[in-house]
Amino acid sequence: MLPLRKNIAEMAGYVPGFQPQEDGWIKLNTNENPYPPSAKVREAIIAELGAEGESLRKYPDAASKEARAVAARLYKVDPEWVIMANGSDELLNNLIRAFAGEGEEVGYIHPSYSYYATLTEIQGAKIRTFGLTDDFKIADFPERYEGKLFFLTSPNAPLGFIFDNAYIEELAQRCAGVLVVDEAYVDFADSSAMQLVKKHENIVVTRTFSKSYSLAGMRLGLAVARPEVIAALDKIRDHYHLDRLALVAATAALEDQEQLRLNVDRVCNVRDCFSNELRKLGYEVIPSHGNFVFAVPSDRDGKRVYDALFERKILVRYFSDPLLKHGLRITIGTREEMMKIKEALTEIG
Amino acid sequence: MLPLRKNIAEMAGYVPGFQPQEDGWIKLNTNENPYPPSAKVREAIIAELGAEGESLRKYPDAASKEARAVAARLYKVDPEWVIMANGSDELLNNLIRAFAGEGEEVGYIHPSYSYYATLTEIQGAKIRTFGLTDDFKIADFPERYEGKLFFLTSPNAPLGFIFDNAYIEELAQRCAGVLVVDEAYVDFADSSAMQLVKKHENIVVTRTFSKSYSLAGMRLGLAVARPEVIAALDKIRDHYHLDRLALVAATAALEDQEQLRLNVDRVCNVRDCFSNELRKLGYEVIPSHGNFVFAVPSDRDGKRVYDALFERKILVRYFSDPLLKHGLRITIGTREEMMKIKEALTEIG
Repeated sequence: MLPLRKNIAEMAGYVPGFQPQEDGWIKLNTNENPYPPSAKVREAIIAELGAEGESLRKYPDAASKEARAVAARLYKVDPEWVIMANGSDELLNNLIRAFAGEGEEVGYIHPSYSYYATLTEIQGAKIRTFGLTDDFKIADFPERYEGKLFFLTSPNAPLGFIFDNAYIEELAQRCAGVLVVDEAYVDFADSSAMQLVKKHENIVVTRTFSKSYSLAGMRLGLAVARPEVIAALDKIRDHYHLDRLALVAATAALEDQEQLRLNVDRVCNVRDCFSNELRKLGYEVIPSHGNFVFAVPSDRDGKRVYDALFERKILVRYFSDPLLKHGLRITIGTREEMMKIKEALTEIG
Repeated sequence: MLPLRKNIAEMAGYVPGFQPQEDGWIKLNTNENPYPPSAKVREAIIAELGAEGESLRKYPDAASKEARAVAARLYKVDPEWVIMANGSDELLNNLIRAFAGEGEEVGYIHPSYSYYATLTEIQGAKIRTFGLTDDFKIADFPERYEGKLFFLTSPNAPLGFIFDNAYIEELAQRCAGVLVVDEAYVDFADSSAMQLVKKHENIVVTRTFSKSYSLAGMRLGLAVARPEVIAALDKIRDHYHLDRLALVAATAALEDQEQLRLNVDRVCNVRDCFSNELRKLGYEVIPSHGNFVFAVPSDRDGKRVYDALFERKILVRYFSDPLLKHGLRITIGTREEMMKIKEALTEIG
């Protein structure tokens, strides 16, 4: 018998959203952006490759200097406040490794991103979840929260609401440890906690390129926090965690804010129209700050609607969890895709 | 004060080899391959990008199915014996996370790859190092080694010798935990422990694409081990750890064994010629199974030669460690580069 750690042997792996391999599906289940990324991303990758791919034989810049500099300008901080990452998942993982040892506590809201639990289990740390009140505050959050880390997904996924900055500041003050504001979806929202990192030493903001930048396929993320936090994350990351193509893609994507705004605005417009259409069909829809909506049919049977959509080769996300099974999370696709799902939902009833 | 874990606060970060940014250097310090990767790698990347980079908006295949299938055929195992990774560093990291909890022991040879120490420190596990005998066996290795993991770099870097399979089998039997055979350089060697994974349940073999496949810039590695070990590593890795371009690059590189052999043979020929030239200049050179040589000048002053080469814009690797400061690790570059360093060394004396 191999001496696997008990926490690893006993844990179940994380199961990502279903990715159909054949064509013909309308895929609204993993919050991918329906539009291609900035054309400058492709150009930068091809330029980096060179005529023979000869740049690939050399190690990348371990410090991600260029991408960090662009991000720092964008977020109005010094570069030592920024770290790039292989998807924001890498940051969530390394934040746990930086702050929570075996048996120490990591908190998050359920429902939010269930991957926090997986990462906490890998570390052998202790999970504590909190529920939500009806007005989307954290239920029974202690006056002083002593956990080493608290993950706040804002905007929340899968529900789509956002925590306002006044509430986030209050939470930061109540947390003895680090408050990680996971802003995976924030480019689709009206506000952001980004500037709070300067005011509260225990706030870390994480971002992904998977949603608003249309780069789920490139695995890119970043975090902004005080330099001592970034320095700790820098020690923990694999020293060459980002390949040469990912690095130039990150820089090009961050530099093209115009394309980002264009894609984001299109998604938000479609989202708001689609939400209204859903309401007309009798769905309850939480006003969304992401590129998805959480929609509840009048019979509160998410599975029934999921199955009927699946039969029509339309894929959305259904969660069997008791807190979520009354609804569906539907990614915002193109206007055409949302017309089709609307028609299907009208038919399904 | 933020509640950083003590092991993280106290550790020093890993310092990768120096990467000069300006041109004009002969760079023989980080064991990069001097030749470009297979042309099929570049083709596969461009095909994956598509006309608008539109594939990048979608998540990659979390299971790396295609690359694993090709690797499995190559190594004559079933795909569930293979895991792909974001550089072999990711595997070393996750092997520690799978097997060694806080305070548990991880062993390795000094000198070998100092990054094992960094990874062990991040985990809060305990490091135990072993020395080498004059005939390149492990000094004072216990009859029964109770550490959770032992990392065996074979071929050894920076010295270049290889452990033969009979000795590796003996070590596997003496290890209560896992014996990780880190074969980063093995494509340049005469033998490999790869087929031993079928015979000894505690052997894990790791490989990198950074050296023989000329893909240091793409961050790719893989491990072969029994399915229960691979399943554990699969739980621990970030679920989308490899981006779309890295995945197609891995598949294309593994499929082009002809180009691999061509590049490897060129490097080995140049290495063997260069080793002889060094010996003629009075250097002691350990017969190398990697794409580098460890060379000792007659005055056993590695720093003197390093500095003199640096002045001539030739970069090699000098380690100030007492066990290594008498020599230099010199990467094998092109024939032209090795002519130039030979001339410089003749001049330096």
